[in-house]
Amino acid sequence: MKKEFKTLDCTLRDGGYYTNWDFNKDLVFDYCKTMEVLPIEYVEIGYRSTPLNGYLGEYFYCPKHVMAELKALMPTKKLTIILNEKDIRGHHVEELLKPCLKYIAMVRIAIDPKNFKRAIELAKAIKLMGFEVAFNVMYMSNWKQDSDFLNGLEGLEDTIDYFYMVDSFGGIMPNDVIDIMTLVKTKTNVKLGFHGHNNLEMALINTITSINEGCEIVDCTITGMGRGAGNLKTELFLTYLNKVKNIEIEYTKLGKVVALFEEMKKKHGWGTNLPYMFSGAFSLPQKQVMEWVGMNRYPMSSVVNALKNQTEDIKDN
Amino acid sequence: MKKEFKTLDCTLRDGGYYTNWDFNKDLVFDYCKTMEVLPIEYVEIGYRSTPLNGYLGEYFYCPKHVMAELKALMPTKKLTIILNEKDIRGHHVEELLKPCLKYIAMVRIAIDPKNFKRAIELAKAIKLMGFEVAFNVMYMSNWKQDSDFLNGLEGLEDTIDYFYMVDSFGGIMPNDVIDIMTLVKTKTNVKLGFHGHNNLEMALINTITSINEGCEIVDCTITGMGRGAGNLKTELFLTYLNKVKNIEIEYTKLGKVVALFEEMKKKHGWGTNLPYMFSGAFSLPQKQVMEWVGMNRYPMSSVVNALKNQTEDIKDN
Repeated sequence: MKKEFKTLDCTLRDGGYYTNWDFNKDLVFDYCKTMEVLPIEYVEIGYRSTPLNGYLGEYFYCPKHVMAELKALMPTKKLTIILNEKDIRGHHVEELLKPCLKYIAMVRIAIDPKNFKRAIELAKAIKLMGFEVAFNVMYMSNWKQDSDFLNGLEGLEDTIDYFYMVDSFGGIMPNDVIDIMTLVKTKTNVKLGFHGHNNLEMALINTITSINEGCEIVDCTITGMGRGAGNLKTELFLTYLNKVKNIEIEYTKLGKVVALFEEMKKKHGWGTNLPYMFSGAFSLPQKQVMEWVGMNRYPMSSVVNALKNQTEDIKDN
Repeated sequence: MKKEFKTLDCTLRDGGYYTNWDFNKDLVFDYCKTMEVLPIEYVEIGYRSTPLNGYLGEYFYCPKHVMAELKALMPTKKLTIILNEKDIRGHHVEELLKPCLKYIAMVRIAIDPKNFKRAIELAKAIKLMGFEVAFNVMYMSNWKQDSDFLNGLEGLEDTIDYFYMVDSFGGIMPNDVIDIMTLVKTKTNVKLGFHGHNNLEMALINTITSINEGCEIVDCTITGMGRGAGNLKTELFLTYLNKVKNIEIEYTKLGKVVALFEEMKKKHGWGTNLPYMFSGAFSLPQKQVMEWVGMNRYPMSSVVNALKNQTEDIKDN
């Protein structure tokens, strides 16, 4: 049985939050060779960006030689990169993306809903260059309360190929996925996508729910490596597809790559824990939690208390 | 808002599969003091058993001094112990359980469906002594195909207080929970319970689903510590209850105990991984996977291949 939706693995891109977008070359080699044989259609290899302050590794800028190497390792895959809308303007596009034309099939744009209109101009410029374009719009858990920006979707059918809903805080429940997709479908016929986070261990069920409701592309990462509590685990999703849709998986290769990332996980410690559960449940930004947890200086109970105080608007002493 | 169902934490009992039912006294002290202040009604402290071969620690036998100590630490909680039906007969009950009467509110019985009838005699003997009695019936994922034993539930309303459905393989999906509960509810009015495993990260959504469908008691363990991939995480479930049902949680105390178990998890490594995902999806016994994974001698990919061969009935060389 063939699956009726696309899968996008964004391990290097989303995992880069833990490694500063530096990855061991051998690891990337094994990862790419494995992606090539798995039932995954799109592989996101990193960001492209104008130069930012501070050190950011190779997969944050994805220079031409990186794109060329990775495309050679994954010739049958559609490669994607993502742009942070807040850092990129229309006039950057030509210079930033021209080197990508040979290697990159789709450009995604990470968007705060408050900048939605500005993002449309960016999308149009990118589409004109010939890329598939996806919108990754954040803070999905707030959209029920704040849905005005969705009106901006009207007339974008020829500009964007996928409209992704991003569960930025990882607190979405399956019923919310249904409600929000019902809302979004009243606004647009653009194909929908879902990017889940795993704070409440809801990434798989939310992703399955999104597909049942009509999503045509979903994201995952090996071992869930990704900002904060991380993402839907590629190996979990593929095992599920193997079981439910009888899609063949090369478990030996998958298992070897998973083991390499599990090893790295011991150092960086992504995955959910009590502070991430709390931040997911109460829609608090991952970034803050990730900093506090990552320092290993504060006991988990102090981090949760600090977060709890935030939700209660109590000044934390 | 009060919750309309009971929660049972069975960390020491189910976690014992990793520690041979030995636990550090200070850890147990902190665990019990924390349980005492959390919105958890039942705490399962271990097994009781006739002497078995091989070394099994204190919480496998729960001698009187252990029960007395733990009850003193958790005076407001209902303590439970569990029996393995396969090892215990009606004539053992008097000697085995008389010392428990002062400390233990409920006795649970872990039952293979094929021994369901035999278990009823055991349950009647235990009920006569004055305990609450729960059936923990295994292999829930097989019940759709093999439901005859459920006819034995007729007339047991006065014998058993809770009929637990146990997702032994950890491969149940929310729709299965609904289907199986619909089936079970046609057979009995006994209050239902759910014990989930987390192989596919479905423990929380399955537990929520079971409650929505009428379950009146559900199990969890701190950090999910439990056989194989482990259980619903107590801290995840409580965070969810805090959010959705506005139930107060003492996060500081919870966080401290979670941190102690997380530390132990680094050594024992419970939680899901690719072999457990695979065994969950294809209903393979946890015990085998746990042995292979626990040895740390085989790469994950070999374990998955060995499991895959089992499902395909190929002799593994």
